[in-house]
Amino acid sequence: MHDGPEPIQDIAHLGHVEILTPKPEQSLWYFRDLLGMEVVHTGERSVYLRGYGDYAASTVKLSEAGQPGVGCIAWRTVSEAALERRARAIEAAGQGIGWTNGDFGHGRSYRFRDPDGHVMELYFEEMKYQAPEALRSTLKNLPQKFTGRGAAVRRIDHLALLASDVAKNRDFAERVLGFRLREQVRYDNGKTEIGSWLSANPVHHQLAYVVDAKGGHGRLHHFSMWVDNREDVLRAADILAEAGIFIEAGPSKHNNSQGFYLYSYEPGGNRIEVYSGSYLVFAPDWQPVTWNEEERGTGVYWGGALPPSFIDYATPDIDAAQPAKVPVFDPH
Amino acid sequence: MHDGPEPIQDIAHLGHVEILTPKPEQSLWYFRDLLGMEVVHTGERSVYLRGYGDYAASTVKLSEAGQPGVGCIAWRTVSEAALERRARAIEAAGQGIGWTNGDFGHGRSYRFRDPDGHVMELYFEEMKYQAPEALRSTLKNLPQKFTGRGAAVRRIDHLALLASDVAKNRDFAERVLGFRLREQVRYDNGKTEIGSWLSANPVHHQLAYVVDAKGGHGRLHHFSMWVDNREDVLRAADILAEAGIFIEAGPSKHNNSQGFYLYSYEPGGNRIEVYSGSYLVFAPDWQPVTWNEEERGTGVYWGGALPPSFIDYATPDIDAAQPAKVPVFDPH
Amino acid sequence: MHDGPEPIQDIAHLGHVEILTPKPEQSLWYFRDLLGMEVVHTGERSVYLRGYGDYAASTVKLSEAGQPGVGCIAWRTVSEAALERRARAIEAAGQGIGWTNGDFGHGRSYRFRDPDGHVMELYFEEMKYQAPEALRSTLKNLPQKFTGRGAAVRRIDHLALLASDVAKNRDFAERVLGFRLREQVRYDNGKTEIGSWLSANPVHHQLAYVVDAKGGHGRLHHFSMWVDNREDVLRAADILAEAGIFIEAGPSKHNNSQGFYLYSYEPGGNRIEVYSGSYLVFAPDWQPVTWNEEERGTGVYWGGALPPSFIDYATPDIDAAQPAKVPVFDPH
Amino acid sequence: MHDGPEPIQDIAHLGHVEILTPKPEQSLWYFRDLLGMEVVHTGERSVYLRGYGDYAASTVKLSEAGQPGVGCIAWRTVSEAALERRARAIEAAGQGIGWTNGDFGHGRSYRFRDPDGHVMELYFEEMKYQAPEALRSTLKNLPQKFTGRGAAVRRIDHLALLASDVAKNRDFAERVLGFRLREQVRYDNGKTEIGSWLSANPVHHQLAYVVDAKGGHGRLHHFSMWVDNREDVLRAADILAEAGIFIEAGPSKHNNSQGFYLYSYEPGGNRIEVYSGSYLVFAPDWQPVTWNEEERGTGVYWGGALPPSFIDYATPDIDAAQPAKVPVFDPH
Repeated sequence: MHDGPEPIQDIAHLGHVEILTPKPEQSLWYFRDLLGMEVVHTGERSVYLRGYGDYAASTVKLSEAGQPGVGCIAWRTVSEAALERRARAIEAAGQGIGWTNGDFGHGRSYRFRDPDGHVMELYFEEMKYQAPEALRSTLKNLPQKFTGRGAAVRRIDHLALLASDVAKNRDFAERVLGFRLREQVRYDNGKTEIGSWLSANPVHHQLAYVVDAKGGHGRLHHFSMWVDNREDVLRAADILAEAGIFIEAGPSKHNNSQGFYLYSYEPGGNRIEVYSGSYLVFAPDWQPVTWNEEERGTGVYWGGALPPSFIDYATPDIDAAQPAKVPVFDPH
Repeated sequence: MHDGPEPIQDIAHLGHVEILTPKPEQSLWYFRDLLGMEVVHTGERSVYLRGYGDYAASTVKLSEAGQPGVGCIAWRTVSEAALERRARAIEAAGQGIGWTNGDFGHGRSYRFRDPDGHVMELYFEEMKYQAPEALRSTLKNLPQKFTGRGAAVRRIDHLALLASDVAKNRDFAERVLGFRLREQVRYDNGKTEIGSWLSANPVHHQLAYVVDAKGGHGRLHHFSMWVDNREDVLRAADILAEAGIFIEAGPSKHNNSQGFYLYSYEPGGNRIEVYSGSYLVFAPDWQPVTWNEEERGTGVYWGGALPPSFIDYATPDIDAAQPAKVPVFDPH
Repeated sequence: MHDGPEPIQDIAHLGHVEILTPKPEQSLWYFRDLLGMEVVHTGERSVYLRGYGDYAASTVKLSEAGQPGVGCIAWRTVSEAALERRARAIEAAGQGIGWTNGDFGHGRSYRFRDPDGHVMELYFEEMKYQAPEALRSTLKNLPQKFTGRGAAVRRIDHLALLASDVAKNRDFAERVLGFRLREQVRYDNGKTEIGSWLSANPVHHQLAYVVDAKGGHGRLHHFSMWVDNREDVLRAADILAEAGIFIEAGPSKHNNSQGFYLYSYEPGGNRIEVYSGSYLVFAPDWQPVTWNEEERGTGVYWGGALPPSFIDYATPDIDAAQPAKVPVFDPH
Repeated sequence: MHDGPEPIQDIAHLGHVEILTPKPEQSLWYFRDLLGMEVVHTGERSVYLRGYGDYAASTVKLSEAGQPGVGCIAWRTVSEAALERRARAIEAAGQGIGWTNGDFGHGRSYRFRDPDGHVMELYFEEMKYQAPEALRSTLKNLPQKFTGRGAAVRRIDHLALLASDVAKNRDFAERVLGFRLREQVRYDNGKTEIGSWLSANPVHHQLAYVVDAKGGHGRLHHFSMWVDNREDVLRAADILAEAGIFIEAGPSKHNNSQGFYLYSYEPGGNRIEVYSGSYLVFAPDWQPVTWNEEERGTGVYWGGALPPSFIDYATPDIDAAQPAKVPVFDPH
């Protein structure tokens, strides 16, 4: 019988994500009319949205900005005590920024940066969504009527961040935040960590780090929304294609994560995924699945290869200051 | 800011379930050829199986018995320390049986009875499935080749047990085991607890207690297997219908749980569900959804009403010793 | 080698159907907002609509009327010569009404009544749909953008009419119009013809006659719209349920026709089906499949039995003047 | 009112296709175990198969041969008289070979060559499939039990042939056989006919001619099988991938035809498609949709571009004797 240390179980789930856009009106059209999300609140330079199956008051904050990218990424803890514990651990790791008084939909939060510079926060207090009369569902356990508008994404699922040093960020997520590692891509006989997929709960991954081929910092590869069936992803492709949205890849199936993906660019420039499939990981002693160059291949299980933009493009877009020091890679 | 007690997070997931059958050959045909599970081990009076997406060595133990029903229900803990903690708590609650040396696929376990008398166990050590050459998947993160045989169920999902006193069993599951309550049906202005759906992880429910209309003890309402898409449930219905299996209800959609269900009777007499849909619950402060008589209705969201057998029949089948003392109810 | 007579191949397909409603505004909401059809033209007391995949200018004419029911049912011929031939044959059969100058979307037509009294017409000249800029598809072979609104029905598919004498109407459809018989329900050792499903093309049936249990005339059992996948039917059920529409039966699968059905009542009272599955019949010498009482059963392959209203209710609704002289039957 | 000539309606549907393979055992494994077809008869060097929803005794004849490719392609007529009429027309066109005494599953046939040299035949007399006890369906209108084995293709759908002169073959199919043109690809301001999709019934196309980039004759681009839902195509991809079959393209969606495709190579080398979606054409005056270079693009609506092999490879494979005289093109 082995006696490992007790697992850290302080983070419950991805809470909300701030998406930055230089084209707020068109981005809002994409998230509301094409993905089918609901607007729940409007701030000075931000609109707050959620999917029909998100129980929280808001899960996406769409904020006007000079460039596309990801703003603050929020994780919810399992309790106030867990929030305090993680805040102390982050501070001790030298990554803390400090406490905030909260925002629409949630109470005080502890802000910090991951080693690559992405801004994140932890919080526990959360406002639940209360549907107005017109959006009340005939299902008592559904926070809002299923309107079926657009792709009708159910809820937020995960995000993939670029990082110049994947190992460092993955280690921080595991050791300090308590995320569990699910899959990895490692090149050069395992010496070079190219991508890591992590989660704090049975969802396969809610956070991925993949190497930034241009050596940038704090960039977003993609942000992903869940639909319940593969057929919903196909339907989303039809809707996006009719709306003139650029579909970069899919619908198709990744080998790692087994995710059934559809990547498009919202008008502000961010890569957004409509997603289903994958698998849940329940085992507390899950052994991370590691893929080498050959096994990883093009990152697809079937369907056409991912296009070069899938490696080259992220938000904000940058010029490679110098030749990439890391191997070129297909992140997802 | 509220400061509740720290949540118990010691149980990870449903580990494996023993199904009793008086017709072992025919039941095996049902699980292997119709549901598409794989046989991994054979004991004296038992066959051990798993779904193509179950990572453990075995998740279903099919055992010959005089009557159908459920044998031992096993839950995996998050660690050895968690196993010890829960064993002590159960012992303190007066429900303990004692330690075992394990069985095929898992190490020592702590056995106990829930207040209604169902036998359960907790364990941590688990053998992972290693596919033989012929069943090795082309996907490195899939424990076994997707053969597509029969309904091709991916993994075990949950079970629903009958109990003479739902409240007592629900309370034990919450307080002693650390399950979280997700939904309830309560009649008589909330005074009579008719059914409760619970889980130890984000899966909506892995354990349900529903009132035993015949006043029995230790009985099984149904055991459920997951498929990834609603279309897979429809396809399963076609396959079971062609095999002459009795389809009791569905494919259709429940209102509580939002589960997309298909109930059939395996040849041994147990009610087995092929299941998809429903929703994940990530919130640590989830407020249980409660349905009264009117809201609950027939338990279906759309599709035909559930047949009387859905209330009257469970395994082992019994004569009602006396007129049911509890309200008649549609469990799922 | 056998030498049968040459088959009649003069009718191409169901062209358009007039639906009568006492609640034109609410019915329009149902067809436009819930089923997702487009309004293409407005007359004095009628609105003309089509599905996103209907190539004709209009396929549904929704007309205000005192009672719900079906108005004129139009079939398109393969040529002008075929139109003339069929007009002569109908006239010779004593069922003719006469020529019209056409209506929005089609040229002159020959009107007639089937033996039960339903008004029908034949026409050849047809206006094709030309999408306005905002509805132009990115697919050159799709008449209109896939908007994904509501259930997003693709095209009209078939209708089922009640008739006091099924045999007489079926015979007229076969002999005079050239429809081919696909399936039948016959009771009393084949002596009583309860229902007949017919088509003029490989679609399994575009016209069904089923016995009117109340002895009425000219009534509509249901009118049916096609979606491409079974998943689309399930999705339609979610949308209709959220809109408070009465779902009478399904989603489920019929045994005869193998159709995957969802029956709801539009606000005007007519039974409308969202439909997929079934099968195409290509064989010119297809042998009609006949079901007796026992084989027919409840008319469902799996899923709950059809409710009594499925037999009792049709539009316009009538009181049974006298006890039904025909066997009670589940039409679809 | 216009008065065109009466349409030719003598051909009912694609009857059966002979597939040539140098690896008969492995090809049989592909069609039987992976696609899920049933073996109905065995000849000296041929095995006869059908899909679970094919009503004819056989629809695929798999024949051992030195090279892969297509053997005889059979079309069923609507009557004996129609058979005689078409035989005379073909003879008059100088393409006739002569009458045969039939083969397993059908009576006498009239053999001929299309202008490119593909061998075809017409027949009317057909043996219907009678399922043995073990394969009898619980559905009276289904010729055989739905076994759900492998991809479980329902029926044959269409084939695409390469031709050095598309216009000549398309003209022969229209004028002599009575096929209707559905879509075309034309380059050089319409002067160069690159591909034509035709059918004798409402199925979008049962026969396609696309230009042979290598200047060959009598070659097969692909042969296609139908499944009812897009999800079935995705599932087929999982099954083929697990079996180690080379997936060349898809699952994805074509722009022309709107077909949802999955192309793989059976072990004998022929390109086989698992197919769903597309659309039915009912209009007798359908105006063919024509795509130019720009509109046609890569031939996909969404998903990755088709690979070069989709243009370069057909069966039997040949070396380009000389630089292709025709524009390079993506046929499907």
